[in-house]
Amino acid sequence: MKIFDANRAETLVVALGGLGEVGKNMYVVMHDDELIIIDAGVMFPKDELMGIDYVIPDFTFLKNNEDKIKALFITHGHEDHIGGIAYLLQTVNIPVIYAPNQAYGLIKRKLLDRNISYDNLKIYNETTKVKFKHLSVEFFATTHSIPDSHGIIINTPNGKIVETGDFKFDLTPIGPMSNIHKMSDTGKSGVKLLMSESTNALSPGFSMSESKVEEELQEIFEKKKGRIIVATFASNIYRLKHIVETCKKNNRKIALFGRSMENNIEISIEGGYIKDDKIFVSPEVANTLPPEEICLLCTGSQGEPLAALSRIANGTHKQIKLRPTDTVIFSSNPIPGNNASVAKTINALYLQGVEVFVNNSENEIHTSGHANQEELKLMIRLIDPEYFMPIHGEYRMLKAHQDLAIDCDIPKEKTFLLQNGDALSLNKKGIRKLGNVGADDVYVDGNRIGDIGNVVIKDRKIMANDGILVAISNINMETHKLLGKVNITTRGFILVNENEELLREIEDVTTNTINKELTKKNVNYNELKSQIISNILTFVYEKTGRRPIILPVILDVKK
Amino acid sequence: MKIFDANRAETLVVALGGLGEVGKNMYVVMHDDELIIIDAGVMFPKDELMGIDYVIPDFTFLKNNEDKIKALFITHGHEDHIGGIAYLLQTVNIPVIYAPNQAYGLIKRKLLDRNISYDNLKIYNETTKVKFKHLSVEFFATTHSIPDSHGIIINTPNGKIVETGDFKFDLTPIGPMSNIHKMSDTGKSGVKLLMSESTNALSPGFSMSESKVEEELQEIFEKKKGRIIVATFASNIYRLKHIVETCKKNNRKIALFGRSMENNIEISIEGGYIKDDKIFVSPEVANTLPPEEICLLCTGSQGEPLAALSRIANGTHKQIKLRPTDTVIFSSNPIPGNNASVAKTINALYLQGVEVFVNNSENEIHTSGHANQEELKLMIRLIDPEYFMPIHGEYRMLKAHQDLAIDCDIPKEKTFLLQNGDALSLNKKGIRKLGNVGADDVYVDGNRIGDIGNVVIKDRKIMANDGILVAISNINMETHKLLGKVNITTRGFILVNENEELLREIEDVTTNTINKELTKKNVNYNELKSQIISNILTFVYEKTGRRPIILPVILDVKK
Repeated sequence: MKIFDANRAETLVVALGGLGEVGKNMYVVMHDDELIIIDAGVMFPKDELMGIDYVIPDFTFLKNNEDKIKALFITHGHEDHIGGIAYLLQTVNIPVIYAPNQAYGLIKRKLLDRNISYDNLKIYNETTKVKFKHLSVEFFATTHSIPDSHGIIINTPNGKIVETGDFKFDLTPIGPMSNIHKMSDTGKSGVKLLMSESTNALSPGFSMSESKVEEELQEIFEKKKGRIIVATFASNIYRLKHIVETCKKNNRKIALFGRSMENNIEISIEGGYIKDDKIFVSPEVANTLPPEEICLLCTGSQGEPLAALSRIANGTHKQIKLRPTDTVIFSSNPIPGNNASVAKTINALYLQGVEVFVNNSENEIHTSGHANQEELKLMIRLIDPEYFMPIHGEYRMLKAHQDLAIDCDIPKEKTFLLQNGDALSLNKKGIRKLGNVGADDVYVDGNRIGDIGNVVIKDRKIMANDGILVAISNINMETHKLLGKVNITTRGFILVNENEELLREIEDVTTNTINKELTKKNVNYNELKSQIISNILTFVYEKTGRRPIILPVILDVKK
Repeated sequence: MKIFDANRAETLVVALGGLGEVGKNMYVVMHDDELIIIDAGVMFPKDELMGIDYVIPDFTFLKNNEDKIKALFITHGHEDHIGGIAYLLQTVNIPVIYAPNQAYGLIKRKLLDRNISYDNLKIYNETTKVKFKHLSVEFFATTHSIPDSHGIIINTPNGKIVETGDFKFDLTPIGPMSNIHKMSDTGKSGVKLLMSESTNALSPGFSMSESKVEEELQEIFEKKKGRIIVATFASNIYRLKHIVETCKKNNRKIALFGRSMENNIEISIEGGYIKDDKIFVSPEVANTLPPEEICLLCTGSQGEPLAALSRIANGTHKQIKLRPTDTVIFSSNPIPGNNASVAKTINALYLQGVEVFVNNSENEIHTSGHANQEELKLMIRLIDPEYFMPIHGEYRMLKAHQDLAIDCDIPKEKTFLLQNGDALSLNKKGIRKLGNVGADDVYVDGNRIGDIGNVVIKDRKIMANDGILVAISNINMETHKLLGKVNITTRGFILVNENEELLREIEDVTTNTINKELTKKNVNYNELKSQIISNILTFVYEKTGRRPIILPVILDVKK
């Protein structure tokens, strides 16, 4: 591959994930015999990836350069930045992982859950400096919806690279302020390349402060005398933190619902972000308290069918039955793609007669953890880089972010709108684009990586739409005889009991096809199969308008 | 059913579709031996209804009262109001259908396409009055995104019922003004029950005028010198009308892409809504014109994978290849649930380097055809009904609409938040709620109605996620002998070529299971099957974490 011809004095930058998508962030900086990785995320698949559980980056480039890998650096503890670590460790040797405190807790639990032993997970903070022969790494604190989020500064022989991680600027944050002074100093010291996250690059203005959400939630809590049920992202630790504090202020105990909610609260207590662990009670205890003293904090803000809130809304939750005096608060927005399922949950809640609050202009009970346009521009101005590469976003977001950088006086030719795998090369003079190292999507389904290909997904799609029809026959291929009856079995195609005649007709079509083919002098196995497929499909489509998978199975029975 | 015990002097109102959903509108008013139907729509299924093409209302109640049916009245020509007519006519005898002009054209074409002959389709306009023995029907013009939309007034022995159809108030409309004076007069004459549509009941304020959209599109057209590609809803006839006029003003010829776009333009020309048919050229001719003289008007504004715009964006369209100077305009909003597919199309367009306009605060190039909150209140105030029933919307929309009615001084107990099939009974004194007549969803898949049940959909879901595994064996059930090898075939489960060992292991599991069962004195067919399923599933889940459908087929071969 051309890429390896890059001069040994040049520094290579590659995104193995995170470009053209929201998810599976993974960025690589390589100089000579040193390679460092930033983040190892997963992506939750879109509906079209039938049944796939996760998408992870392609680790082939790392495998090919395994001897050079010095370390993996984690910007913060969200799944799209840490969810791929377990898979990465199964594939390549990573000498050391550096993670900030909250992410450290989450990664440790994740590896424990999967029975992966790894001894070299280290905690960094803002003062940590990690030095290798050519490369060295520093950090600056950012604000995001999870504590201990950091941007990363990589000093290379060809200049400084800054990777922001996920961030927003919240000037009245729930946690500590982001270190705008260190960002400013970094900018003043001269930055060659800024890689900045683009999630909200399409949103104008400056995002609302988390403190405003806290105020609005307090207003609702003050007024309500029944039980309050709050659904939010379990990964939004600052939200959980101030909901806990609001409950304390309003004398409500909290019962947790949803495993990820329990995990995140536990790790946040361990990490010291949530101080009062006495406020949590079991669902059983909550059911014995007066309604004005209860808050149920649960997962399901995205309408996930199996999450706590969905089951509560549908009346199928074992412990919680809704009462007319309950108030349900969605402290969240639907992620694009989830609107329909969130609406379904809201409708189910209204049907149960409870009051529902969603985030809107009247009740500002959610804000994003990502920077809007003015904040993105502020980052560009503070870091003041020579070159700019938008990362972490769909193409339209990267494009909008590129436009913002151009508005901030970075010449268009010094901005890079790239795709996963595209490599940049930094030298003393500047940055140029090289070829693509290869960075396809890798699918995880169940507990196996990469054993699902596009053929399998295509089959799943057809079966999802029209089902499958299996036509089985015993044939003696020597004597050209069909033995016994043809067996037609279907799943997901039609209600079998009410369509016996149609199935008998399909049996006849198959029998006739086979008998006709068997009169030929030379019976070709594959040709026989494709005749069966084609004849059944034609017949079935005419009768039903459906095109199920036709699966002919011919058992060659020799007597 | 209790409902039929209603006093013969009472008037019955039932929604057979349209409550708790956006789609398949169908409302029934019945008095003594007279029954009239308002609208017969389809609903486009949500993703969870795997492969289902349409959902239609349950016509059982109509079938049971077939002798009473006097007429079907159509409010306007959109699919969620006329799409069920073809299915209805196959099930029940409808003596006459009254439709306004544009809907008439669309229904005629629909029946022709499906080879359904029906002689009694009549056109009504605002001056039409239809009288039966007890019931009589009048109309008032409304504004919506399709011409000839009407509200319906039903005079019953127990008072007036008004059903609004779909509407907005546009005080500077592209077509004629809605007849606010007739609404006002109707209100003054005394209305017992208002049934009003709720699609945008969650949207505050007053919806933007269609004329504003026309202005904004003109601004873009003025500036652009390359080709302009506009994607919009083919059913939004007023939008199509002013896009055609904007093209004329800017000296651009129009090529149409997408069959529904061609159909709607054709019917609009026939109906006289679009005057200039010389402006349309074939794609071939368009390709010979200079770019500043071309507009491509196409379907695909919702990112539908097979629609014209998606194929253009992906570079797979036969006639149209994108050029860097092209401008693409989405004169539409994503319908909830389509955000992800629209985003995919936009990303693909950006990847091709073209300029893209979407509807946002900077470019207001779309407005809804449905009333926002202030308009809904205006309708309530004009009609000034004694009772109120929100229709046409998900439950949260109906709920918000009910709240608006209460704000407009209708007592809460005189508002009815109902579900499909719930019956209201009107008498001289007032309105009371009766039982439910039954109004389930009916699925249409391919060309067949109702042969898909929940079992079939459940199977499709499992296969969509994990595929299917068929285990076939020839067994002589008399001699308890397994003949030949077990055959394992899978689809959508795993990449077969790369997992031969796993498949061989599954074969062994199956063979062992069968042989073990066959040693029993009495071999039970069903028990054998369920043992095979259970053993394969346990093995497969442990190995892969997947739960495909296990389909054991046992051919009983007697020698």
